[in-house]
Amino acid sequence: MPWPAADFYAQRRVLITGGTGFLGRNLVAALKEVGAKVRTLSRSSPPDPSEVAELFSGVRHFRGDLRERDVVDAAVEGAQVVFNLAGHSGSISSNTEPFEDLDVNLRGQITLLEACRQLDPRPTVVFSSSRLVYRPSPQLPVPETALTGPLSLYGVHKLAAEHYHFLYAHLHRLKAVVLRITNPYGTTWSSSLLVGEGGRYSIINWFIHLAVTDQVLPIYGDGHQLRDYVHVDDVTRAFLIAGANPKGAGMIFNVGSGQGVSFKTMAETVVEEAGAGRIEHRPWPAEAAMVETGDFVADVSRIAGVLGWQPTTQLAAGLRRVIGQYRQMQTVP
Amino acid sequence: MPWPAADFYAQRRVLITGGTGFLGRNLVAALKEVGAKVRTLSRSSPPDPSEVAELFSGVRHFRGDLRERDVVDAAVEGAQVVFNLAGHSGSISSNTEPFEDLDVNLRGQITLLEACRQLDPRPTVVFSSSRLVYRPSPQLPVPETALTGPLSLYGVHKLAAEHYHFLYAHLHRLKAVVLRITNPYGTTWSSSLLVGEGGRYSIINWFIHLAVTDQVLPIYGDGHQLRDYVHVDDVTRAFLIAGANPKGAGMIFNVGSGQGVSFKTMAETVVEEAGAGRIEHRPWPAEAAMVETGDFVADVSRIAGVLGWQPTTQLAAGLRRVIGQYRQMQTVP
Repeated sequence: MPWPAADFYAQRRVLITGGTGFLGRNLVAALKEVGAKVRTLSRSSPPDPSEVAELFSGVRHFRGDLRERDVVDAAVEGAQVVFNLAGHSGSISSNTEPFEDLDVNLRGQITLLEACRQLDPRPTVVFSSSRLVYRPSPQLPVPETALTGPLSLYGVHKLAAEHYHFLYAHLHRLKAVVLRITNPYGTTWSSSLLVGEGGRYSIINWFIHLAVTDQVLPIYGDGHQLRDYVHVDDVTRAFLIAGANPKGAGMIFNVGSGQGVSFKTMAETVVEEAGAGRIEHRPWPAEAAMVETGDFVADVSRIAGVLGWQPTTQLAAGLRRVIGQYRQMQTVP
Repeated sequence: MPWPAADFYAQRRVLITGGTGFLGRNLVAALKEVGAKVRTLSRSSPPDPSEVAELFSGVRHFRGDLRERDVVDAAVEGAQVVFNLAGHSGSISSNTEPFEDLDVNLRGQITLLEACRQLDPRPTVVFSSSRLVYRPSPQLPVPETALTGPLSLYGVHKLAAEHYHFLYAHLHRLKAVVLRITNPYGTTWSSSLLVGEGGRYSIINWFIHLAVTDQVLPIYGDGHQLRDYVHVDDVTRAFLIAGANPKGAGMIFNVGSGQGVSFKTMAETVVEEAGAGRIEHRPWPAEAAMVETGDFVADVSRIAGVLGWQPTTQLAAGLRRVIGQYRQMQTVP
């Protein structure tokens, strides 16, 4: 499927903060394909040069922290769209290190927005938020108007950063769009990355890693809780449309599959498709239980109605594709 | 009218952060009257000793910043109720100094909550939030379930701090209650304080100060926007009930008069009751226009239903009382 808004992005300068992360590198690949002039900003150098050298060739990478104003100023210069994906991930770690999460995820966001408001013309900023801003609710699917009530500092800070974006839009004539992303999975563009951190970036990718390497996939409790798993290609399409379509300005959109799949079913499907690995049920660790949201399925009708975006990848097919990619990466010497 | 929950507070240790501010000193007076063991924490010494010495006699005051963990630890020790009023006020200044507002109002709040979660038994924390967390809306009155959308960093940070309180309640078994206060006015307990800062603490108190000293009361634009002015004695009663009644735990309550009065009518009433001062209409300064919310009236039915609180002071009567107090203070040598 061709990327949307390809004409819009051709020759256009864009910045991806957090461009070396999971969502970021997928966005890099898509934006390069459609001919954008791509910049990335992140604390890591494009890592694993041998594996991602091709992905980052032609990309201008700024190595720095969102809190470093000089680097941020240089990175945003001339950007017409800023895909704002940078930040600390991890609900549990945010609750144990609240000051660190505050500093990285809020002081960093203000620094970026202060830099963006100096640009002329003002850019469109597309902010990568999370389903974790919502209050646990028995009513599914969850629309954007549902009550908020995060179970982690990470979620509180995502919510505050959403408000920063709309506030700067109001005060300084930026255009801001917020995407609340459910549980993404997909290619990570390298085998050694993003898989070994207990599913912080993508629980499915971590499980695929465990299955392909014939390890144990741990499920806390019975695993009946529903999740909304969305393929990263669908998320990438949502970013591209949100950055290009002026109808999104000032709005919050859920980005998910709109389908509820139990955690256990997801794990079983991974094992089945991989033909390896095995599932073990374990008692909930206290820290994980405190951030457990219960069932979640996103209502994605708003983004369908306003921006014409719809999820296209079914879970089983998406899993097969990612497992195939992992297998290929595993065979790289 | 006697203070509510007097039996609950007798001999009970309470802490008031921001205890030397406008709401804080009114709460100090009430809690002393009902026999609580009162502590205050704020960056200022109880100022104007000659004027407020009596108010702060018998109060243990901790001079420090909410960000100073040592001082905060000492202040919260043994507190069974924490009235959490400390913070930077001011919408406009928060937009021009976003990093300062972030640090004082969010890093400070996390520091306080980290200290509170060490206490055994855990305290009830009553957080002083603001109507400024709401998104401007044509639908009046505004209930607690209305959409949020602050026009200032101050409002964004109030909203994030609300979430911190409920998050710490969830993670660490605190009890937390949030009061979203409209536009309070009332006695300031000293003539030289809290009146000269352009209405940052209370627009009505500032206007009374201007009227009593026969100066100009400036109105931006036509002054037709509705506001919900609430007497500080009613706010104080809401704090006392919220700290004592377990039904409030985990809830957000609007605290206002529930009545909409135009800005112009308020100013005219002040001039009339004071028999001095004069009104002048002025064009909106850009910075003030950016934080102007339009009409606001709070729906106060939730706090009436759950906690049995109702506003008791009518605006004209309340204004007369405050003007009388200012006149008295003016005559103090």
